[in-house]
This record gives sequence, C-alpha cells and structure tokens, in this order.
Amino acid sequence: MKVALLAHEKFPENAKTAVGVLRYADYDVVAVLDRTNAGTRVADHLPDVQDAPVVASMDDVEGDVDALVVGVAPIGGGFEESWRPDVRAALERGADVYAGLHYFLGEDDEFAALAEEHGCELWDVRKPPEDLGVAEGVADSVDATVVTTVGTDCNVGKMTATRELYEAAQEQGMDAAFVATGQTGILIEGSGIPVDRVISDFTAGSVERMVLEAGADHDYVFVEGQGSIVHPAYSGVTAGITHGSMPDYQVLCHEVGRDSVHGYDQELPPVESFPERYETFAGPVSDSPVVAGMLNTRSIDDDAEAEAAVKEFADAIGVPADDPVRFGTEAVLDVIR
Amino acid sequence: MKVALLAHEKFPENAKTAVGVLRYADYDVVAVLDRTNAGTRVADHLPDVQDAPVVASMDDVEGDVDALVVGVAPIGGGFEESWRPDVRAALERGADVYAGLHYFLGEDDEFAALAEEHGCELWDVRKPPEDLGVAEGVADSVDATVVTTVGTDCNVGKMTATRELYEAAQEQGMDAAFVATGQTGILIEGSGIPVDRVISDFTAGSVERMVLEAGADHDYVFVEGQGSIVHPAYSGVTAGITHGSMPDYQVLCHEVGRDSVHGYDQELPPVESFPERYETFAGPVSDSPVVAGMLNTRSIDDDAEAEAAVKEFADAIGVPADDPVRFGTEAVLDVIR
Repeated sequence: MKVALLAHEKFPENAKTAVGVLRYADYDVVAVLDRTNAGTRVADHLPDVQDAPVVASMDDVEGDVDALVVGVAPIGGGFEESWRPDVRAALERGADVYAGLHYFLGEDDEFAALAEEHGCELWDVRKPPEDLGVAEGVADSVDATVVTTVGTDCNVGKMTATRELYEAAQEQGMDAAFVATGQTGILIEGSGIPVDRVISDFTAGSVERMVLEAGADHDYVFVEGQGSIVHPAYSGVTAGITHGSMPDYQVLCHEVGRDSVHGYDQELPPVESFPERYETFAGPVSDSPVVAGMLNTRSIDDDAEAEAAVKEFADAIGVPADDPVRFGTEAVLDVIR
Repeated sequence: MKVALLAHEKFPENAKTAVGVLRYADYDVVAVLDRTNAGTRVADHLPDVQDAPVVASMDDVEGDVDALVVGVAPIGGGFEESWRPDVRAALERGADVYAGLHYFLGEDDEFAALAEEHGCELWDVRKPPEDLGVAEGVADSVDATVVTTVGTDCNVGKMTATRELYEAAQEQGMDAAFVATGQTGILIEGSGIPVDRVISDFTAGSVERMVLEAGADHDYVFVEGQGSIVHPAYSGVTAGITHGSMPDYQVLCHEVGRDSVHGYDQELPPVESFPERYETFAGPVSDSPVVAGMLNTRSIDDDAEAEAAVKEFADAIGVPADDPVRFGTEAVLDVIR
C-alpha cells in the first residue's frame, strides 16, 4: 500500500509517528509532507529507514497514493488547520486518511462529506471500540508467553523495543504477535486499542482483551507498554497495561542519561530500583519478573561508548540488556525464548 | 431539598449509593423506592441513618419531591427498563432526576423530552467534564494538607471513611473539603468528577484539578480513593488518584476478614504489606506516608470483638487505626491534625 506521511515542520525529530511508520510499517511511503524540509529526502535525515522525497504539500505528491497518514501528534492531540488543504487534497484524489489525534477526522463535517463523496475511509486510530469493559483478571489463561515492555519514563523507546523484539522473533521463526496500545503502534500494526484514550475503568480490560485475542493464535505476545509507573500523569495507563496483560516477563526500557521525568519537574528514581518496583507492582496480580532491559542510546555517537552504556545499564538492573536499534535484541530474546 | 431514592430490589445491602445518600447527603429523603420492601421503613433496615418510608413506586410518594435519585448501580452501569415508569413519573411531576449510571439519562430521548417539557434537570453524575487534561504534577503546590484514602480492595469503605473524616474535621472546626471521585461521593457532595469514567490519560489530571480547587479555599482536603493498587481491573484509577492528588498523608482502608479481591479469583497480599506498597508507589511523585488506617468491621456483631479487630489491624500496619462508623475517626484525625 502506498502512503504519504504528513509531518509539517516536525520531521524527523518531533514526528515520532512518521518515523515509526517509515521504520516499521508494511507501507510503501511515497512522500513525506514537511514544508520546512521540502526538497530534501528522508535519507538525508534518517539513514536506516526506507527513503522517500520530502515535499511541501499533497499537491506535490506524484503518482498513486492509497492513504495519507498524519504522522505528527501535537501536545493535546488537536488538528492543525494548516493541514486542512493536504487532507482535503488527499480525499479529493481518492486516498484514505489515517490519524491518531484526539480530534476525530470522522467528526469533521468537511472531511466526512469529502470521504463520503470520494468513497474514502477516515481511520481515527485513537478512537477506542465502544464495547470495552472491565478486566476479568484472566490474561494469564493464555498458553502464549506474554512479554510486556515497561519504562522508566515516557518516550524512552518502549514501542520501538517491542516492535524490534516482535520482528526479530518472527525472523527467527517464533510465532509472535504485537499488541499495539498507542497510536503509532496501531498505525504500524493496522490494529490495536489506544489504551490512553479508553475510559479509565476499562484500561486493564482493553489490554486483557487484546492479549486474549493474540494469545489464542500465537506462541509469543509482545505488548507495547505506555508511560511509567512513576509518571505523575500517566501511571494509571501503565498500571492498567501491567495488570491487564499479566505478563510472564517484563522488559525494562530506559534512555541513557534520562534522570528526570520528560517535561516535568520530577527526578527519576535510580534505574536500579525499577525492576523491583515493577515486580512488586505486578506481583499481587501476576508473577512477572523483569528479565531483561532495553537501553536507548540515540544520544551517544560512539558505538563503543554506547556498548559500555548498555553494559552499565545491565549491571545496574541485574539482568541482560541490549539497544534494540543499535545492537539488536538477541540478549533479550535469549532470555524469553 | 426533598428527594426520593430509587433502589428497587436492592435496598439496603446492594444499594451503596442510596445508603450513602441516606447517611451523608444534605438531602431530606422523603421515600425509598423498593418494590420488594414496600411497606417497611428505612429504620427497619438501617437504625443509624435518617428514616423514611419504603414504597413500591414513584406514584406512592406523597407530597413535594425536588429530585429522584437513582441509588443503585448495576454491574455495567446500565439503565434497568423496569425503572422507566418511576423516572417518567418523577419528571412528569416536575422533579429533577440524578443518576450515576454509565447510561446517560440526558441521552435518552424520552427522558430528555420530558425534562424539557417539565423544566426539570437530568444530572448524569458520571458524565465527566469535557475540558479535562493531563496532570502537571503540581497538586502539592497547595498550602492545604491533602489526605487521600487508599484501600486493600474495592468496596472496603473508602468513601465512608473519607466522608466521616471530613465531617468530623468540620465538626471540630477544621476548615475541610471533600473531593468526590465516584458517583456516590459526587451525589452526596453535589460536585466532583467521576474519575473512573474519564479518559485514562486524564485520570491523574482530573484529580489534580479538584485538589487544586479545593486546596485553594480550605486547610484540609480529604480525597476519596477508588479501587486498590493490587486490583486486576481498577489499579489504573487508583494510580491516577494517588499520583494526581500528591497527598501529604495516605489513610489505608480495609474490611476485616477480606482476604481476596472482591469478585475475582485473586488473593490479597498480607494487609501489613500495604503501607509500604502505597508509599513506594507514591514516593517518586510525592512523599506520602501511610499514617493511619480505617477498618470496616460491619461483619462483626460484638463491639469488643470489633475493637480487638481494629487493634490487630493497627498493629499489623504499624499506625493508629479506627472504625469510622462504629468508633469514630479520632485516632486518625489526631495524626493528621
């Protein structure tokens, strides 16, 4: 499927969704829309993902496009009116539009009418199903091995670690599933539930449902974590994912050098305290040891230095660790296989 | 204000909201509707709350009624069609209707039309405000002393303990506020946010907002807890309340004899482990010691036995404890004053 990625003024540093799609999704990306970088190519910014031209608008995208994917998520999840001409142009040429915003495109009168007129789909990734309910505490009834990523903070690389683990497991012939809990993961996977957007009473229930479904058909289920158990705003989502998924194993994700909560005036506890924090929290619901770690070393240029950082992280948390993007996932897969 | 309480087939054992309103709300209850107990009086069932006749339907309620309050909450929060004649009759005689259901009366075509026609209000207590957002991690900026109740499980008496603490504090001349987070508390207080019903990302944010508002005007803020940090379905709500309220003190609520999660096949950890669980969980966001306990001894008939149970509970958790309904709140207020 051919898609264009909207990432105006944000590509690549602040376009987490666009970069995730370029790196992991099974889409053929024909263009990235970023008016401030028009004329460059993806490869000029990101050497290790699929390449595509960066253009100023939908009108500059040549050839067939099956869908326009909104690849940026502003704080608050609103729709930027400056994107309207591109969404309009996409619908007018018959392309679907996918977005993970709190603002639902399907409830926008103009877009709904254009989609109807041109026979296009508006997929609001962040709109949860209507029939969710409370958890029954039964996710551990699946035969599959369930692995949930947890983190020291938001935005340390849980989605990336989960996706890399899933892909590596598949490459090694393991029958694996990926449970997407956030908008980027859902866009990449093509399914999932935006757990941060469900009714709080149903947080664990929505994860339990996905684990039961994935676990019925696969041997390994990799659950994308969200937030952190020490996060002042998002710990409720984290709690629901941990208790809702009842994992056999937890994998702790961290970014090197992160010592305070991103965007908050709050220090993070020492990284070595996190395995016990997550095990103690999960414990009454499920026996879920933290068996491995994933370190994001993107801020370190030198590979030897990054390798030393991963070793230091592994020593601190007392279990094997890896950097899934830089060094792979073998150290972690070894433990859960 | 004169209210009738709808509690068909559930009064009093399974009508938590009706009993809470009878015990704590500043309403004059003129009747309880329960077709299976019609002809009895509230005093026949509950000796220690305001008395009223129990009748079969709204048509049997004599005199003025300002509002009909739905005082039962079925699992799932649906509307029972057998209640429709009573809600209809209430609206037709000009009474407002208050309900804490997941089903919103305001979205019921018949009720909306009747309310419009008769100038009545439909108050869906469980409908959260539309303008909630993520927590900023600033609830501890208030000068007030913030006290949050936490529990070993659901339905152990957190709302009751919080309300008793609040009322006792007021009686002693302390300038106190009650922050309601669930439908019963909101119905009693007349304001609040149903934290179990908000978008999961906004759980902590909705509590933070209430604490900031209450803390600006009062010296003591008592926050009604929900669920339990070890609950397989509701821990996300608990997490959001703990981190969103950033309490100065936590008060641990428990019911004597409760050793498994209500309605789930899961043992509760030993009660003595809970203070450290809640302190460790709160710790990275706020220094929130568990300074007292509240034990619900309703299952014990003998007062001396109940007193011994409270003492045993206090010894187990290592802090003073009380039974707020049976013995009062003095032991707990002493600690936080």
